[in-house]
Amino acid sequence: MPISLGELATSVGCELIGDPDAIVNDVGSLQNATSESLSFLASSAYLKQLPSTKAAAVVLRAESVDACPVASLISDNPYASYARMAALVCPEPLFAPGVHPTAVVADSASVAQSAHIAANTIISERTSIGENTSVGPGTVIGPDCSIGDNCRFVANISIVKNVRIGSRGLFHPGVVIGADGFGNAMTADGWVKVPQLGGVQVGDDVEIGANTTIDRGAIGDTVIEDGVRIDNLCMIAHNVRIGQHSALAAMTGIAGSTIIGKRCMFAGQTGTVGHITVCDDVVVAAKTFLSKDVSEPGTYAASFPADKARSWAKQLARFRRLGSLIERVRKLEE
Amino acid sequence: MPISLGELATSVGCELIGDPDAIVNDVGSLQNATSESLSFLASSAYLKQLPSTKAAAVVLRAESVDACPVASLISDNPYASYARMAALVCPEPLFAPGVHPTAVVADSASVAQSAHIAANTIISERTSIGENTSVGPGTVIGPDCSIGDNCRFVANISIVKNVRIGSRGLFHPGVVIGADGFGNAMTADGWVKVPQLGGVQVGDDVEIGANTTIDRGAIGDTVIEDGVRIDNLCMIAHNVRIGQHSALAAMTGIAGSTIIGKRCMFAGQTGTVGHITVCDDVVVAAKTFLSKDVSEPGTYAASFPADKARSWAKQLARFRRLGSLIERVRKLEE
Amino acid sequence: MPISLGELATSVGCELIGDPDAIVNDVGSLQNATSESLSFLASSAYLKQLPSTKAAAVVLRAESVDACPVASLISDNPYASYARMAALVCPEPLFAPGVHPTAVVADSASVAQSAHIAANTIISERTSIGENTSVGPGTVIGPDCSIGDNCRFVANISIVKNVRIGSRGLFHPGVVIGADGFGNAMTADGWVKVPQLGGVQVGDDVEIGANTTIDRGAIGDTVIEDGVRIDNLCMIAHNVRIGQHSALAAMTGIAGSTIIGKRCMFAGQTGTVGHITVCDDVVVAAKTFLSKDVSEPGTYAASFPADKARSWAKQLARFRRLGSLIERVRKLEE
Repeated sequence: MPISLGELATSVGCELIGDPDAIVNDVGSLQNATSESLSFLASSAYLKQLPSTKAAAVVLRAESVDACPVASLISDNPYASYARMAALVCPEPLFAPGVHPTAVVADSASVAQSAHIAANTIISERTSIGENTSVGPGTVIGPDCSIGDNCRFVANISIVKNVRIGSRGLFHPGVVIGADGFGNAMTADGWVKVPQLGGVQVGDDVEIGANTTIDRGAIGDTVIEDGVRIDNLCMIAHNVRIGQHSALAAMTGIAGSTIIGKRCMFAGQTGTVGHITVCDDVVVAAKTFLSKDVSEPGTYAASFPADKARSWAKQLARFRRLGSLIERVRKLEE
Repeated sequence: MPISLGELATSVGCELIGDPDAIVNDVGSLQNATSESLSFLASSAYLKQLPSTKAAAVVLRAESVDACPVASLISDNPYASYARMAALVCPEPLFAPGVHPTAVVADSASVAQSAHIAANTIISERTSIGENTSVGPGTVIGPDCSIGDNCRFVANISIVKNVRIGSRGLFHPGVVIGADGFGNAMTADGWVKVPQLGGVQVGDDVEIGANTTIDRGAIGDTVIEDGVRIDNLCMIAHNVRIGQHSALAAMTGIAGSTIIGKRCMFAGQTGTVGHITVCDDVVVAAKTFLSKDVSEPGTYAASFPADKARSWAKQLARFRRLGSLIERVRKLEE
Repeated sequence: MPISLGELATSVGCELIGDPDAIVNDVGSLQNATSESLSFLASSAYLKQLPSTKAAAVVLRAESVDACPVASLISDNPYASYARMAALVCPEPLFAPGVHPTAVVADSASVAQSAHIAANTIISERTSIGENTSVGPGTVIGPDCSIGDNCRFVANISIVKNVRIGSRGLFHPGVVIGADGFGNAMTADGWVKVPQLGGVQVGDDVEIGANTTIDRGAIGDTVIEDGVRIDNLCMIAHNVRIGQHSALAAMTGIAGSTIIGKRCMFAGQTGTVGHITVCDDVVVAAKTFLSKDVSEPGTYAASFPADKARSWAKQLARFRRLGSLIERVRKLEE
């Protein structure tokens, strides 16, 4: 959507150095931007691309203005300012209100007038859908769910049962919320299923990535607090709580009843055991696993960088000989 | 469903200490239970919550009766007894028999009279659906499949082709059973796909978690034996066999042609290489990977607990110096 | 489909030792093949099964002909030759051209006459579907997508938006291509979503496994080059590029903006951090994580084989004492 630099600067609260009537119409990287593109410089790694950019304007820190050959939009947090401007330049499509004739909406369900219910969707018994919420094609929303305003369910999502979601949520395809937790009691005759009778609470401004699963509680609820961001293919087990503004990168798994604090960040392929508590402001490095409570903020790690296979095999052999090495040192000490 | 303590005790075979006519109507944790709730004490970690519980009754071991302020239901396996009672107190909803008008059922398919075929489902050629089985909305059951009695496919499930499933199975949303295994032959011109021509056999009383995938065999079948429990986001590759009553927690991956014994338990984010055999009664600790045959029952582990990142970096540096350390010790020994 | 050994030999270019008019009608392993089965010997591990096979014919290397009790089809690459022959013996089903009455096709979409659009599918605005492409049930293809010829989308797939796919692609159930990448900018008030405005390019002859997700670029495209094979439950983040004929086994995750070369092979549960470059012909061993650029072809590893839990606990204790061991050696040296 064509928008002037002046309007962008005013809307997001940046200082503009350049022509306020110049127009941008899309976004681009410093390298690929055209004279209609908004670009940004958020990391010094890209500073060398700044002098040759062909962008209409660049969102950047004040310290980089001198090196910028085009209009500058000055921000202390250029990435966030760019994000807000990009949402103005390239707004999400609007969905027309109404229920598609192929949708199956239960008599006891309630759908706001302004909601968009796409083709081949199911809205089940006693479930309510808020204003301006878009339920994309192939999505199934089960019974006893409450969905807030301005949410978007992109496509082929399953909200199973007894799930309450706040406003402005964004749910990508294949997400499953409210499936049974993994509860089994061993007996001499095999496993007995433990009925999973809780629900899921999802706060406001939550985004859940494609094919991520969030199970419902065994007793009581699984809780995703406001502002949480979860990437693709993550697993949130029953009765977990994820604190406000925490972010989980792809393939992270949080086992049952674990409590994650606020503003935590889990890198990809990380995880935790069940029944632990992780305090606020914890960062977990890629492929790392938390096996006990964490009560001190900071970054935690436990992964080994890859090595050439032959060299790694030698290192493994050395590792295995640690016991005998310790014994040899003991003998030398005697 | 309101049910008396006497009826619960009789149905599950527990001794009741308390009023047999007292009624429970839901379930609760020791801490949150109300005077209408059934609760349980299965782990000593929660013993301290027992004296103050407001539950109607607690399922517990005989040794805890004295500390219980309310009615006691005595069991040697309180978790399993609670599970059975909870299924009586909060029964799964029944599904009305019949085929929804939006379902597409092939002429050559056979659907039992008592089965429930929900909206927007597909039942393909030569596939049969057993008595009281519920096929939830958005589910696609491909050709040449046989589904037993009393199964439940919650929603948006894909059963691809040539899959035979026993009775009382429970399949959560996003499950994919019978997709092609990953078979590719390298040539000078790139990969040639190896046709995946087998099927999948799933026994009785199997539960498969949301977004888990079970591929069909290349030649011959992938087999999930009776009573197996698989959590969310697991991957069972072609020609794997999972033995009776084994349980796989979330994000476990079993590579092709591997044979897992009976009553094995895999914790989260575990895995095995392909073409190995794991005997009965093996437990695999979280994030651990089996790279060769396991012939002895017991618990196996290979993961490192997370450490503060700075401390871990130092430890990694020490680990890298193992070779030179061994050399230094050798010199000292000379 | 019944086919003569002579025809198989000619079609695939193998020498036949045996009766060219003999007929095969299915495939089988050496052990389970019947007199109508085609079998193969690709690994010496199975050589001991060759003398007793009851197959009609075996695809094998010239060196194994003498040990083969039945007809031989000789190939330098028996696995690839078998793959090509198996595709002739057991061809994929054809799909009748046409659009199912329950499909919802946008007026501005274009669907080739020979394409098969199954029940409960969605083809959205400005999207085109090529000749002989089959869009399976429950699949949603969003706006502004271009799908080539002879592709197959098995079932319940979500192609979100601005995705261009070449010819002969095979996409298994639950695949999600083109969902938003995970882009968030931190502010004092929590995360601000960074609009994901790029697309996804998928080349020719690509196969994507069940429940795998490929996100669209933030700015610019995520790219999957020709001939790439990706297994189930993998995650390809925004702006990643996977080079020609690379293969990723199940549960592999490639973080944002990482570039993977040609003919790379990632084993199961592997991954990379974001923003790195991996050269051609790199092999990554199971459960290994690449944390920096790889500029030399070869095999990389960093995982520990599982050990009995008690033994592993001792080894962990030794590992933790590495610092003090180094100190003790230093003292001995003094």
